[in-house]
Amino acid sequence: MNFTGANILSVDQFNRDAIEHIFRIADLMEPYAHRRKRTRVLDGAILGNLFFEPSTRTRVSFGTAFNLLGGEVRETTGMESSALAKGESLYDTARVLSSYSDVIAMRHPKSGAVAEFAEGSRVPVINGGDGANEHPTQALLDLYTIEKELAHHGNRIDGMHLCMVGDLKYGRTVHSLSKLLCMYQQVRITLVSPPELAMPSSIVDMLVNAGHQVNQVTELSGSMDADIVYQTRIQQERFTTLDEAEQYRGRFRLNSEIFTKHYKPNTVIMHPLPRDSRAEANELDNDLNQNPNLAIFRQADNGVLIRMALFAATLGVEHLVSRYDTDVIWYSDKANS
Amino acid sequence: MNFTGANILSVDQFNRDAIEHIFRIADLMEPYAHRRKRTRVLDGAILGNLFFEPSTRTRVSFGTAFNLLGGEVRETTGMESSALAKGESLYDTARVLSSYSDVIAMRHPKSGAVAEFAEGSRVPVINGGDGANEHPTQALLDLYTIEKELAHHGNRIDGMHLCMVGDLKYGRTVHSLSKLLCMYQQVRITLVSPPELAMPSSIVDMLVNAGHQVNQVTELSGSMDADIVYQTRIQQERFTTLDEAEQYRGRFRLNSEIFTKHYKPNTVIMHPLPRDSRAEANELDNDLNQNPNLAIFRQADNGVLIRMALFAATLGVEHLVSRYDTDVIWYSDKANS
Amino acid sequence: MNFTGANILSVDQFNRDAIEHIFRIADLMEPYAHRRKRTRVLDGAILGNLFFEPSTRTRVSFGTAFNLLGGEVRETTGMESSALAKGESLYDTARVLSSYSDVIAMRHPKSGAVAEFAEGSRVPVINGGDGANEHPTQALLDLYTIEKELAHHGNRIDGMHLCMVGDLKYGRTVHSLSKLLCMYQQVRITLVSPPELAMPSSIVDMLVNAGHQVNQVTELSGSMDADIVYQTRIQQERFTTLDEAEQYRGRFRLNSEIFTKHYKPNTVIMHPLPRDSRAEANELDNDLNQNPNLAIFRQADNGVLIRMALFAATLGVEHLVSRYDTDVIWYSDKANS
Repeated sequence: MNFTGANILSVDQFNRDAIEHIFRIADLMEPYAHRRKRTRVLDGAILGNLFFEPSTRTRVSFGTAFNLLGGEVRETTGMESSALAKGESLYDTARVLSSYSDVIAMRHPKSGAVAEFAEGSRVPVINGGDGANEHPTQALLDLYTIEKELAHHGNRIDGMHLCMVGDLKYGRTVHSLSKLLCMYQQVRITLVSPPELAMPSSIVDMLVNAGHQVNQVTELSGSMDADIVYQTRIQQERFTTLDEAEQYRGRFRLNSEIFTKHYKPNTVIMHPLPRDSRAEANELDNDLNQNPNLAIFRQADNGVLIRMALFAATLGVEHLVSRYDTDVIWYSDKANS
Repeated sequence: MNFTGANILSVDQFNRDAIEHIFRIADLMEPYAHRRKRTRVLDGAILGNLFFEPSTRTRVSFGTAFNLLGGEVRETTGMESSALAKGESLYDTARVLSSYSDVIAMRHPKSGAVAEFAEGSRVPVINGGDGANEHPTQALLDLYTIEKELAHHGNRIDGMHLCMVGDLKYGRTVHSLSKLLCMYQQVRITLVSPPELAMPSSIVDMLVNAGHQVNQVTELSGSMDADIVYQTRIQQERFTTLDEAEQYRGRFRLNSEIFTKHYKPNTVIMHPLPRDSRAEANELDNDLNQNPNLAIFRQADNGVLIRMALFAATLGVEHLVSRYDTDVIWYSDKANS
Repeated sequence: MNFTGANILSVDQFNRDAIEHIFRIADLMEPYAHRRKRTRVLDGAILGNLFFEPSTRTRVSFGTAFNLLGGEVRETTGMESSALAKGESLYDTARVLSSYSDVIAMRHPKSGAVAEFAEGSRVPVINGGDGANEHPTQALLDLYTIEKELAHHGNRIDGMHLCMVGDLKYGRTVHSLSKLLCMYQQVRITLVSPPELAMPSSIVDMLVNAGHQVNQVTELSGSMDADIVYQTRIQQERFTTLDEAEQYRGRFRLNSEIFTKHYKPNTVIMHPLPRDSRAEANELDNDLNQNPNLAIFRQADNGVLIRMALFAATLGVEHLVSRYDTDVIWYSDKANS
C-alpha cells in the first residue's frame, strides 16, 4: 500500500485495505495533533492551499495539518483573484501553481474541476470538495470517527447499526459515507427522511448489494437501537411552503428529549458541520452540547488527523514522522484532552 | 502572576501588577523584535488569526509577533467566508476553529462577540477588537509607549501630564487608556475637545476618583506643559454641516506651528493610527514627521512587543524565550535602530 | 556588486553586471527550488507580501521563494482591508507595515505607488508590479529564461534573434524586456504586430541606439529564423469592432501549424502568462503543450529562482545559503525534473 505521489480525488479510489492503511497512519498522528510531541518531518515542504470556493474550516484544517508536520502553507482564496477569470485553462493554472508547492489541497465550486486540475499538476492534489461531486477527506474523517467512537464502546464498523437522518437526497456526505461502508460487512443501516428527500435508489441498491441490511422509514419510532446517528440538515429551499418545511424539520431534528426517547444512552451523535443553530432550523439542539456522545467536535479533530495522514502518505514520510520528534514546551490544553 | 491558559478580553481584567508583569515581558522581547536575536520557543505552535472584520495592521502585527517567537500562523479574514453566515453559533465556530490552533487572536465587528467566542474555545483567546467595545492590546501598547517615552526623558507615568485632544466621546482608545491610567497615581490629565465630543462623564468621574487631576477645556491656550499629547481624529460625520466640521478640525489639529506654540520641545506626540492625511482632515500634519518626539510609529513597534508578550504569557513560555536563541545572520535595518 | 538593503523598483536600476550578478545567484538557488536540498538561511526572517492588487501567481511565487529560503510570510491582499481607504498616506502605511517585516514584496494598481511606499519603508521593497509602470521581477525572469533556453542550445543573448509578436504597444513585459536587452550586444529583434499596436518608437529607438538590428513587420512570412518567439495577447478592447479583433487575432496567434511553417524546430516559445485559452482568443494554442520548446511553464519556475535570488541579495545572504543546507526527505517530483 503506497500513496507516494498519488492524487486523492474520490472515495472510489479506496478499497478497504487502503482505508485502513490511511486510518492507521492517522492513529500515528495523535501525539502531534494533541501537541504532546512536535515533528518537523515536512520541514521545507510547501502546501498550496487553493480554495477557489470559500470553506473556512476545511481550509484551516488542511493548513493546520500541514503545519503540524513541519511544513509551510501558501494560500489562495476566492475566484476573482485568479487568472481563471482571464480565460486561463485549469491545465495552465495547475501547471503554474503546482510549480510553487509540493502538494496541493484544492476546493472548487465546479464538479470535476479538481480532477481536471490534477491532470495539469506536477505535484499530488488532494480534493477538498468539488461542488456536488466529491469531498473525500470529509467522508474519510466521518468513517474514521465512526471507527474510533465504536472502538471506545468495544464495537467495530462490521456489524454496527447506523441511522442517517434528514436530507438524504442532496447530502453529499451521506452518499460518500455510504460508498465507503460498502467495503465493510453486515452493517445495519436505517434511513430516516421524508419521502421527497429519500436516499437515491442507486445508493440504496449499492448498500444492499454489499450485503447490508437497509431499512427506509419516514419517522423515528420506538427505540432505534442505533450505535450511531448521523444527523443532517433539512434545507428550507427543498420545500414549496414554509409550513411544510417547518413541519418536516420538526420531525427530523434531534434534541435531548428525542434522543432519550428513541436512542440508546451510548448512541453516538454525528453531524457534518456547520449545524444551523437558529431556532427555525436547529437540526441538532444545543441542549445536547454536554452529552458525551456528541461526537461532532471530535469529527473536526479527526479531520486534522486524516489530513495529516494523507499528507504524510502522499509525500511518502509516514514511516519517518517520529524520527523528527521534539518535545513541546509551551502550554497546550490539547495535550490534556 | 500567571497568564498561562488565560483569555485576554478586556483592560478590566488587569491590575497594575498584571500590567507591569506584561510590560516587563515585552521588554524581554526587544532583541527578537529588533532582529538582534532569533528564538524558536513557539516552534510548532499555531496561531489562529481570525479577523472577521478587516484590520490590516492589527492582523499583521499579531501574525508577526507569533512568527517572531517561532510559531506558525493560520489566518481567516472576512465574514462571508465563514460558516457564521450559514447560521452557525459562535460557540460551534469556536469549538471547531479552536481545534486547529494553540491560541487565537480575534477581531469581530460585534461588541461582546470575542468573549462569547472565548466561551466555546478550547485555547486562549486574545481580543483584537470587538466593535465599539474593547481593543485591549491597543490600550496596552499605548500605555507601554507612554511608559517608554517618559523613561527616555527620566519620567514615569505616576505624576505625568497627559493631554488628550479631539474626539474624546467616540474614541475607543482614549477610553481604554483612561481606564488603565486609574491604576496609576497623581496623573494630570487635560481633555481638549469640542463640547459635543467631550469625554463621557463616567470616565471623567473614574479618573477623578482615582485621585487624578482632570482639566476639561475646549481650546488649546498658552503653554499646555504636557509630557504627552495623545491626538485623535475628529470625524466629519459627527457634525451637521461641513462648515462646522471644518471649523472644529482647524482648532483640534496638530502641526509644527501649533506644536511650537502650545507644547514643550520634548512633548511626546501619539496617535492611534491610521491618521487621515487628506488636506480636509489632517489631524496630525506631515510637517511633524521628522520631529523626534513623534512616537506614532514607535507605537506600532511597541504593538509587536506587547503582542509577543501576551503570546508568551498565555502559552507559558515567558521564562524560556532566551533558551531557544540563535543568531540572526541576514541583514536587518531593525538591528541598528 | 552588493544589493544588501537595496530596493528593487525598476529595470532601469540594473546594468549588465548587476543583471548577471542576480542571474548567477539564481543559478545557486536551483537545488533548493528543485527540492534536492533544503536551506534555512532566512530562518526567522519575515516577508511582508503586500498585494494591494490581486495577482495570484506573482503573490504565491514571492511567498514560495521566501519559504524556500527558510523565512516566514505575512500576507495582505486587496485594497478594501487597508487603512489606505481611510485616507492614510502611503508613507504612513509604509512606516507601519515595514515595522512588521524584514523585506516587502508589493503590488499596487497605481503607477509609482511602490516607489512612493519605498520612501517610507524601513526595509527593502521589491516591486511586484505597479500598474502600467514596472514589473521588474517579470522582466528579469523573462531575460533569465531566454539566457537559460539559449544556453541549452549552445547560444547566448548577445547575437540572438528574438521575435516579439502581438500587442507591442500596451504590453508592459515586452517594453521592460526591450530595456534590459539594451545592455546586450548585436541582438536581432523582429517586431510583429498590427500597425495600431506597434512598439512605441521611443523603445524602438532605444534598441537601435544600443546597436541592435530591429525589423518591424505586420505579418509573419517565410521562415522567421528566430531563436526565441515571445508571444503576447491581443486584447479585444483594443479594436472598434469584433470583426476587426477577430481578424487580427487570427494573424497573430501561434499554433502547431503556424509554428512549423514559420519557425525553426528549436525556436523557443515564451509568453507572459496567463494565456487566454478561450477559442475566441487562443493566442498560444494548446496543441503546442507537448512541444519541448514551449518554455512558458519554465518561465514560472525561473520566477521562483529570480525571486529567491533577489531576497538573498537584498538580505545579504547570497554567500550563506549552502551553509544552512539539510537533506530533503519527503517525496518530490521536482527533484527528478
